[in-house]
Amino acid sequence: MTSVAGRRAPARVGDPVAAIDTPALVIDLDAMERNLAAMAAFAHAQGLRLRPHAKTHKSAAIAQLQRAAGAVGVCVQKLSEAEALAEQGVPDLYISNEIVDPAKLARVAVLAGRVRLAIAVDSHLGIDRLAAALKAEGTEVDVFVEIDVGQGRCGVAPADAGALALRVVSHGLRWAGLQAYHGGAQHLRSAAERKAAIEHAAGAVRAAKASLALAGLACPLVTGAGTGTFALEAASGLWGELQCGSYVFMDRDYADNHLGPEPLGAAPVAFEHALFVKSQVISVGAAHAVVDAGHKSHAIDSGMPKVWQGGFEFRNGGDEHGILTPVLHTEPGAAALPSLGDTVWLIPGHCDPTVNLHGSYVGVRGGLAQGVVETVWPVDARGCLT
Amino acid sequence: MTSVAGRRAPARVGDPVAAIDTPALVIDLDAMERNLAAMAAFAHAQGLRLRPHAKTHKSAAIAQLQRAAGAVGVCVQKLSEAEALAEQGVPDLYISNEIVDPAKLARVAVLAGRVRLAIAVDSHLGIDRLAAALKAEGTEVDVFVEIDVGQGRCGVAPADAGALALRVVSHGLRWAGLQAYHGGAQHLRSAAERKAAIEHAAGAVRAAKASLALAGLACPLVTGAGTGTFALEAASGLWGELQCGSYVFMDRDYADNHLGPEPLGAAPVAFEHALFVKSQVISVGAAHAVVDAGHKSHAIDSGMPKVWQGGFEFRNGGDEHGILTPVLHTEPGAAALPSLGDTVWLIPGHCDPTVNLHGSYVGVRGGLAQGVVETVWPVDARGCLT
Repeated sequence: MTSVAGRRAPARVGDPVAAIDTPALVIDLDAMERNLAAMAAFAHAQGLRLRPHAKTHKSAAIAQLQRAAGAVGVCVQKLSEAEALAEQGVPDLYISNEIVDPAKLARVAVLAGRVRLAIAVDSHLGIDRLAAALKAEGTEVDVFVEIDVGQGRCGVAPADAGALALRVVSHGLRWAGLQAYHGGAQHLRSAAERKAAIEHAAGAVRAAKASLALAGLACPLVTGAGTGTFALEAASGLWGELQCGSYVFMDRDYADNHLGPEPLGAAPVAFEHALFVKSQVISVGAAHAVVDAGHKSHAIDSGMPKVWQGGFEFRNGGDEHGILTPVLHTEPGAAALPSLGDTVWLIPGHCDPTVNLHGSYVGVRGGLAQGVVETVWPVDARGCLT
Repeated sequence: MTSVAGRRAPARVGDPVAAIDTPALVIDLDAMERNLAAMAAFAHAQGLRLRPHAKTHKSAAIAQLQRAAGAVGVCVQKLSEAEALAEQGVPDLYISNEIVDPAKLARVAVLAGRVRLAIAVDSHLGIDRLAAALKAEGTEVDVFVEIDVGQGRCGVAPADAGALALRVVSHGLRWAGLQAYHGGAQHLRSAAERKAAIEHAAGAVRAAKASLALAGLACPLVTGAGTGTFALEAASGLWGELQCGSYVFMDRDYADNHLGPEPLGAAPVAFEHALFVKSQVISVGAAHAVVDAGHKSHAIDSGMPKVWQGGFEFRNGGDEHGILTPVLHTEPGAAALPSLGDTVWLIPGHCDPTVNLHGSYVGVRGGLAQGVVETVWPVDARGCLT
């Protein structure tokens, strides 16, 4: 077996799907490539920059596929993610999050000497410390001021954007624009709720731009948006760069969003499930079957995975088990329990933290039923928390 | 920085606590050692074997501390966990779970040539395949028949134990006894509920022993129990081996159990919180602060972490953020927001899957406030899912 990062990988290149050990993180490469192309085509058609969020996949190989499809670079959420992807050759990285620790900022400054790097700020202290670290190292980064566009997490109030941007400029740092991402809007189920949330976010962006104008500063770029809302940000005319991440894989939670009238009048951009956990039935009871995949193999923060084959409900069986029961309202006889050793494909509830649980991806070409393992990729930035 | 499994470790031996990078998985070594000693003393006093569950810590170093305190070996939940711990020198391992895949069973047979190994079974097919794999390799394992004692997951009905045990014996395998663990009972909040659940489990064990007697077989050992109920299993006189895992760290969820009258009449065995996630405030809003630890750094399957310092509620801020708000019913003025850069210690909701998110443990001696890093241990079996 191929060893990835000291761990036995669940498959070898050339294996049939049946030979993939369980549980394993499996990519349907054909579906993933269609997702990559669909998002790239959308951004190109809208004249927008695409900087996909690599917090989803944590993979240099996938980041490079996104760049090859036209992405300007990728976002990450943590410095150590940026370091891991830079080490694997990704040349343009944006840490779309705040860092205030001087020891971490010293590493940011070092990394900025190796790749094109950007970072978000939302405090005067953070800006001052960033400036000190960059000055000590003699390097530069692009600096985005994050505004709170409705998420209620990081970011300053829009009216404070001007003062922070002036602080960025006063240190001679590269002023890059606004970070404006509404994470909470991505999974609002109805199209109307998502539309209202992004209208609110757009109002915040307008207010922040007014604050910048009052401070005598232009706004080179507004960056943000996610898989649940990107067409709305695009339609607003305010955002210049899209940060969608999950589109590459599509999880159960995103698929549960109800699609609505497209804000741009075109057909909705459709994404396919491309990420699966392959599991195996290890125990069968009178009215349930047990698979070898629990929440140490798929994240359940956004709910349970969906059984891809249909006919079964997945119940939480703890860290290492999942419990399958027939969906009662299916046709009679359609939901006999699977047998010992049977393969069960799971569509994770939330792809980002699911990926983080695995050491490697098994990339399959030709579909999950009859395909062949084309690649085994390490999850390069797995567990990069700092 | 020390590199563990290809990742930058968050601290070096000798560092003060303040220098530990965030987020990091930190052990209060003094508290952990008291937990280890308390459980070892309990098992010794009761004349029971202790085989702690290493699914909690996934660490060879901690497994060896448990063995030094008198444990006969450790349990694991997955074959790859056993392989990882065996590679680091743990000599006695019990896979307390079912395996039916022939390729995995071939690895079981190989591993059995290197360490003393045991495994659970709950199907004729699983027994037949295990026997074939061991015969091919010429090795032996101890075989426990798992019975369902109320969990509703793996395990046969007690009345079927005799038939399965006969199948084990018919293959010439080493018949070891019954696996009888009630995971669902561990977190029942009231002592009365836990007592009722273990009374039910004890009834199942008695029924299984009757089934074995009918089949003409003795029951060498009953193994099971967890941190929430072990005193009840001990008091029953049926179990001969305790598998508790979480006692070593104690998470928020176990601490939320209400202790009741001790079944053995003695003082309750008390365990302390010994596992923490060190986090840092990276953003401060008008009425909340944001730390750099989300559910990629602590598992939330059993609820949110608790802020160790008190005074704040932790809200889910997504994969990489936690949102702190003052607990409103505290005394006025007692809950001013923390400042940028402040350290916030989190007690994870559930220790087992939290550990699995980290590459290393930082072991601190002398308390979290003023202590020093005494050790950095890899999480040896992190991500060992197969």
